[in-house]
Amino acid sequence: MAKYKRTHMCGELSLNNLGEEVSLTGWVQKSRDLGGLLFIDLRDRTGILQVVFNKDIDPQLFEIAQKVRGEYVIHVSGKIGARAENAINKRMKTGYIEVLANDLTIISKAETPPIYIEDDLNVSENLRLKYRYLDLRRPVMQNIFFVRHRVNKLIRDYFDKNGFIEVETPVLTKTTPEGARDYLVPSRVQPGKFYALPQSPQLFKQILMVSGFDKYYQIVKCFRDEDLRADRQPEFTQLDMEMSFVDADDVMNIIEGLMKDVFISIKNQDISLPLPRMTYKEAMERYGSDKPDVRFGLELKDLSDILKDSEFKVFSDALKNGGCVKAINAEGCGGKLSRKEIDALGEFVKTYRAKGLAWMNFTEEGLKSPIAKFLKEEEISSIIERMNAKTGDIIFIVADNKKVVYDSLGQLRLELARKFNLIDENKIGLLWVTEFPLLEYDEEEKRYVAMHHPFTSPMDEDIELLDTEPLNVRAKAYDIVLNGYELGGGSIRIHDSEIQQKMFNLLGFSKEEAWKKFGFLLEAFKYGTPPHGGLAIGMDRLIMLLTGTDNIRDVIAFPKTQSASCLMTDAPSIADEKQLAELKLKFEKEE
Amino acid sequence: MAKYKRTHMCGELSLNNLGEEVSLTGWVQKSRDLGGLLFIDLRDRTGILQVVFNKDIDPQLFEIAQKVRGEYVIHVSGKIGARAENAINKRMKTGYIEVLANDLTIISKAETPPIYIEDDLNVSENLRLKYRYLDLRRPVMQNIFFVRHRVNKLIRDYFDKNGFIEVETPVLTKTTPEGARDYLVPSRVQPGKFYALPQSPQLFKQILMVSGFDKYYQIVKCFRDEDLRADRQPEFTQLDMEMSFVDADDVMNIIEGLMKDVFISIKNQDISLPLPRMTYKEAMERYGSDKPDVRFGLELKDLSDILKDSEFKVFSDALKNGGCVKAINAEGCGGKLSRKEIDALGEFVKTYRAKGLAWMNFTEEGLKSPIAKFLKEEEISSIIERMNAKTGDIIFIVADNKKVVYDSLGQLRLELARKFNLIDENKIGLLWVTEFPLLEYDEEEKRYVAMHHPFTSPMDEDIELLDTEPLNVRAKAYDIVLNGYELGGGSIRIHDSEIQQKMFNLLGFSKEEAWKKFGFLLEAFKYGTPPHGGLAIGMDRLIMLLTGTDNIRDVIAFPKTQSASCLMTDAPSIADEKQLAELKLKFEKEE
Repeated sequence: MAKYKRTHMCGELSLNNLGEEVSLTGWVQKSRDLGGLLFIDLRDRTGILQVVFNKDIDPQLFEIAQKVRGEYVIHVSGKIGARAENAINKRMKTGYIEVLANDLTIISKAETPPIYIEDDLNVSENLRLKYRYLDLRRPVMQNIFFVRHRVNKLIRDYFDKNGFIEVETPVLTKTTPEGARDYLVPSRVQPGKFYALPQSPQLFKQILMVSGFDKYYQIVKCFRDEDLRADRQPEFTQLDMEMSFVDADDVMNIIEGLMKDVFISIKNQDISLPLPRMTYKEAMERYGSDKPDVRFGLELKDLSDILKDSEFKVFSDALKNGGCVKAINAEGCGGKLSRKEIDALGEFVKTYRAKGLAWMNFTEEGLKSPIAKFLKEEEISSIIERMNAKTGDIIFIVADNKKVVYDSLGQLRLELARKFNLIDENKIGLLWVTEFPLLEYDEEEKRYVAMHHPFTSPMDEDIELLDTEPLNVRAKAYDIVLNGYELGGGSIRIHDSEIQQKMFNLLGFSKEEAWKKFGFLLEAFKYGTPPHGGLAIGMDRLIMLLTGTDNIRDVIAFPKTQSASCLMTDAPSIADEKQLAELKLKFEKEE
Repeated sequence: MAKYKRTHMCGELSLNNLGEEVSLTGWVQKSRDLGGLLFIDLRDRTGILQVVFNKDIDPQLFEIAQKVRGEYVIHVSGKIGARAENAINKRMKTGYIEVLANDLTIISKAETPPIYIEDDLNVSENLRLKYRYLDLRRPVMQNIFFVRHRVNKLIRDYFDKNGFIEVETPVLTKTTPEGARDYLVPSRVQPGKFYALPQSPQLFKQILMVSGFDKYYQIVKCFRDEDLRADRQPEFTQLDMEMSFVDADDVMNIIEGLMKDVFISIKNQDISLPLPRMTYKEAMERYGSDKPDVRFGLELKDLSDILKDSEFKVFSDALKNGGCVKAINAEGCGGKLSRKEIDALGEFVKTYRAKGLAWMNFTEEGLKSPIAKFLKEEEISSIIERMNAKTGDIIFIVADNKKVVYDSLGQLRLELARKFNLIDENKIGLLWVTEFPLLEYDEEEKRYVAMHHPFTSPMDEDIELLDTEPLNVRAKAYDIVLNGYELGGGSIRIHDSEIQQKMFNLLGFSKEEAWKKFGFLLEAFKYGTPPHGGLAIGMDRLIMLLTGTDNIRDVIAFPKTQSASCLMTDAPSIADEKQLAELKLKFEKEE
């Protein structure tokens, strides 16, 4: 029997408990001394409950209650009473009742906390991170981690039900070939050698398929020593899965079923299956992105055929150089944009390397456009027809190589949606993007690189293109996209050694190099490899989207800053000389 | 629709499926060509099924089947038939049926594997670890990982049902003060600084209690850079949990309920609750161990009072120096031990620092004992009475300081049980050991050290002894012991800052030192700390005991050897010069 026994949690009490004797524990949200009556708002992880102390009834108890301050931890006993009509707080779960206290113990005191325990907190994020334990007391933060717990549980139930086995893969492992930068861990037993923290369990999950486990999943920490962007962390969590004897459809079906469970359970929203699928080519052409936000229109339209003989050099030159001219019609937005704002959008697309942003504003007074004078009458009317432009609309046009046109218009599309609030937040923009290119050409390294990874299988119908047009070979790769974010991706892997050899040749690896990089997997593939494929989902990203935050640090209990520091524990920190000596390592100070 | 579609898994088919057309995939366990009939044993993770090819029915198919070798991956279709009476294999789940094949595709070929895919494998462990993917194909290994999966699932269901929230704690974190040796991870962004991999999430789970999460659990990887013993690994998995507003009973109740679920589900054995509890003192006195194997007797008995005035110097000197004399009666074992074997047991106890092993063998011909001549008649008769010795028994006696007596007799007890097969493997020796000492005296460091960790709470009734007899203070600490192994342990933590300060004083930490080591936790404790406590269970150990292996590497998919190497991936390995340069580290070669 605990010393500070509680009979209930604060948030689970209601009018149903009227007259019951209860004992509760928790933190003091606030206390108000109104003379003869003192009110304490008691908080635990389930909610807040009002406790009342009456000086007339128990002066001694009242005196103790007067000593209580914010964030004290207390134990309270009393009877549940109904609040007076005018004291009812309909916004609180427990707003109809209060505890008429007959006992109170101060379990532990608290200094004045450096941040308030309130959902709307207006302090620097660094202060929140330093006092993370206080930050995490805020109901809005607690809710995020309860959602995260529920999603994890749901994933585990789902994969278990579907015959997947959870297998743990190592954290101390080997450098990832062809990956991002690894975190290294020096070995003491074998000085001069290093483990690497895994960027993903990719090779291990393929090994598990070779081992005959058939269906594997894991929720697992992964690591990348990259310079951090707003939505990146040095360690992140991945839902990782792999299946044998399957094709892409089987993998996608499993993940779709999971997504349906997640949205019903967490968002109380059903989604209809199968999810829409869009090829990479279509996504790029219509949305300028391989992770299109399909919750709104503003699609890209191609004007290249209309403008191929244009006298406007900007357009015709782009087309002559193999580029394209594409446009967006921001319907009804023409009148809402000042000239200054339009110019700002021009600056915006320049950050995506567009040289400029042409526009045609269809005002009540007629077409306003700096480029109209360069265009022929019939070019303009064809554009109007193609873009379905009406009075009030404004068309934005970019001409350049494909990559720049897609990037800049794809981003402009998102910028306009934000600016004009075009996104219905109740919509779920969930879809598959498929048929990714197998290879990209790396201009710096002057070689092909795998877009996904070197074990991704080409599509059967494109295999013969491997010899002739490698850049046109599509892969059995698929991404799942939610509201314009890449939630996860995967592929069917190569299990045929001839095709694997061809792939390595294309990537420019000699047999020796391939063996050096992937030796143990290639060795494993010699002893009977099942066809297999899988997918990984970024858990942090998924939880962000489900809880509606745009800060990845909000969904990680103890995150790192952009300089990869933990402000609470002060990690990383200086190591003992002795520790470094044991590792036979020396730090080379800057000159 | 997968290219190699299967309708069933091999192991799920039985006489119930007679006449059904099935398609199956898997590995070839073996094939036998008996002239006109060819039999292939097809294996997947669920079992093995016999497939028959008949030359008369389909000569072309037969020819393909003849090409199949062991570990080829194939796709087979056919009809389920009953085996002939004389071909039935009652030991196999599927031994009553076979597939009459009408289609066969070789999906991938296999070279002759370096190890057989058989449960009874007689090869070096290193070969198994190098070809781990083949080793893991063996049904005995697959079974271990399915058990592990089921235990994980069960743990998650159990804690979820009981209101615990799973929260992930960081892997890149700060050095553990007062712990074992850490693995370090150099920071590139902050050269000269290091993260440490966590030895346990101890401080984080306490922080989560300060954060108000109330009940936390996690199945989590932990790391220790220690020299490896047979049952240690550099990375290991822990079930970690913590609760607020509880005392030791609450934590123990939760864990007992889990154990009941585990044993019913995995071993089909019920255990009655509450589990037995034994104080540390009793465990040491009766079993010479704080993790007693209670499945058999051979308990230690104290002879100190009988022998305190003995003329036998070995006994009386030990007693004069504050030691004790204790004995074990190996009932009925006297006649089974040769003089040579008895001498060997004498050598055995010397490895536990006993100076010698006295014995009294009660043979049909009377007492045989090298020490009898030093003992008085009444001393011998008192010993016989105390030990309840009968003809056929042999008594072993050790006199020394307490630690040596407990260690050597405790180990001798286990050795005798192994030697004479005294352990009923169907028994479940599950119990709590409680009331551990709070402190030990470290002879090397000449100071008190925390037996558990510096945040472990003393027992309320012993608090005043902190000032006067610190070594007699008992802690609110508890271990759960299974069949003589420490499965896990935990404690109620200190939440009172005065007691915490006293503890630090005893450990010899100045306020500055304590702050340097545990600063962020002490800071957190300033803002309202709930009483809390928890426990951690070694998952690898638990799975070992549940699956009956004594090799920890058998329960880890990709384990490390005693030199902390992974023989499959060849980790750790030499790092690129470039990688070290980025970390501003230099390896100092041995001279």
